[in-house]
Amino acid sequence: MCQLLGMNCNVPTDICFSFEGFSCRGGLTDHHSDGWGIAFFEGRGCRLFLDYQPSATSPIAAFVRQYPIKSTNVIAHIRKATQGEIGLANTHPFRRELWGQYWIFAHNGDLKTLPNLTGKRFQPVGTTDSEHAFCWMLDQLAQRFEDRPHRDELFPYIADLAAQLAERGVFNFMLSNGECLFAHCATHLHYLVRQAPFTVAHLVDEDVSIDFSEVTTPDDRVAVIATQPLTDNEVWTAMRTGEILMFVDGAPHRLPTN
Amino acid sequence: MCQLLGMNCNVPTDICFSFEGFSCRGGLTDHHSDGWGIAFFEGRGCRLFLDYQPSATSPIAAFVRQYPIKSTNVIAHIRKATQGEIGLANTHPFRRELWGQYWIFAHNGDLKTLPNLTGKRFQPVGTTDSEHAFCWMLDQLAQRFEDRPHRDELFPYIADLAAQLAERGVFNFMLSNGECLFAHCATHLHYLVRQAPFTVAHLVDEDVSIDFSEVTTPDDRVAVIATQPLTDNEVWTAMRTGEILMFVDGAPHRLPTN
Repeated sequence: MCQLLGMNCNVPTDICFSFEGFSCRGGLTDHHSDGWGIAFFEGRGCRLFLDYQPSATSPIAAFVRQYPIKSTNVIAHIRKATQGEIGLANTHPFRRELWGQYWIFAHNGDLKTLPNLTGKRFQPVGTTDSEHAFCWMLDQLAQRFEDRPHRDELFPYIADLAAQLAERGVFNFMLSNGECLFAHCATHLHYLVRQAPFTVAHLVDEDVSIDFSEVTTPDDRVAVIATQPLTDNEVWTAMRTGEILMFVDGAPHRLPTN
Repeated sequence: MCQLLGMNCNVPTDICFSFEGFSCRGGLTDHHSDGWGIAFFEGRGCRLFLDYQPSATSPIAAFVRQYPIKSTNVIAHIRKATQGEIGLANTHPFRRELWGQYWIFAHNGDLKTLPNLTGKRFQPVGTTDSEHAFCWMLDQLAQRFEDRPHRDELFPYIADLAAQLAERGVFNFMLSNGECLFAHCATHLHYLVRQAPFTVAHLVDEDVSIDFSEVTTPDDRVAVIATQPLTDNEVWTAMRTGEILMFVDGAPHRLPTN
């Protein structure tokens, strides 16, 4: 299995603190050492750093830990390979373009069977179940909506696709188009929302603290989503099996019918 | 205008030496300071580093200059904005997936008019003429070939698309799928092939030399393609207006009918 980290905010925020703790789990405090990646949306653009080395020792991860990139939507992944060899083509997050937007996807789990790709529009480059599932979801979205729908129209449809894939195995995932971030829980996914009054947070994986009141403004709102809580002095909410949330401007939204 | 740098080799090679000189042109020895990017193919995978800061001062460029990534196909670009604002979404190289391969594209020039995008399969995320042209080329390729053709079948078709776009303005570009690298010259593009016996090369933009005989094996072959020559003691070949070359394993190929 792998571990996921996501961030969704109402103002561009750097993820250095969370990534500091998270990246330790790639070979240091945990065994997810088969590569890692992180994607940052900045406006409509998107930066993607990938490495097949463990995040705890990767020079690129060391660079990302100390270089603050301000973003409103971030998805990171550290890999423990289950399907597909270790290599760049199999390293999450994956990226494609749909409706003139970049889409970023990362998966934690293992799908025992995969749906057929009916079209040829999105094809996997690597050999993971994860990239195949991502391509299938985008194929379905492209067939359903010719042009980009509003996120409120998108959300129930993505929830439906997630439920279909979740029948085939373990399917925790995060998906973002830079506007909002979808998080689906199969086994493990936790989140918290940081907002005023901001306090001091302390990492689980390293003895590092940050006083968010010193680096934020009163209107900031930041949601952090992770496979396992990253801090040991804040309250994280565990998502339920089958639950999907859409994060917008740092706040979680449930399906209207939930 | 912008500047382009490409590398195509028969064994994975790092581009640190060439990128050292090239990146100086982004704000130091030349004025191409509106962002930069570099893409490395590694196997089927692809790493893309982008920044909207000048390459001469960008911390990410500093990292790439000193971190050797071994690749058989590299495309880099430093930008002097002509169309589209400065920002990550308008930063070259651009990447899309077609036929289960990543495709990387960078452009130097300025297209006065753009062909209509007939399909919705590839849509620009940013606002440059370059990304639009790239999407159009991929759209045409996807319509022409349902499955991935052999590169010898691809080459004349890409040459035809390039010629059509070159009628609309200045269109120097590089395009790669990780197997081969296509380079089209409108105004300025130079290349050289380094192979045994390897010698010492000295940069134009900095007083830096490298003895390639110390870092290569006798079978290595490396083609470097750049808007302007990067070294001052090697023979660079200037490409002609309208000329397109396909580089495979470090060697240039011409169209059979050329």
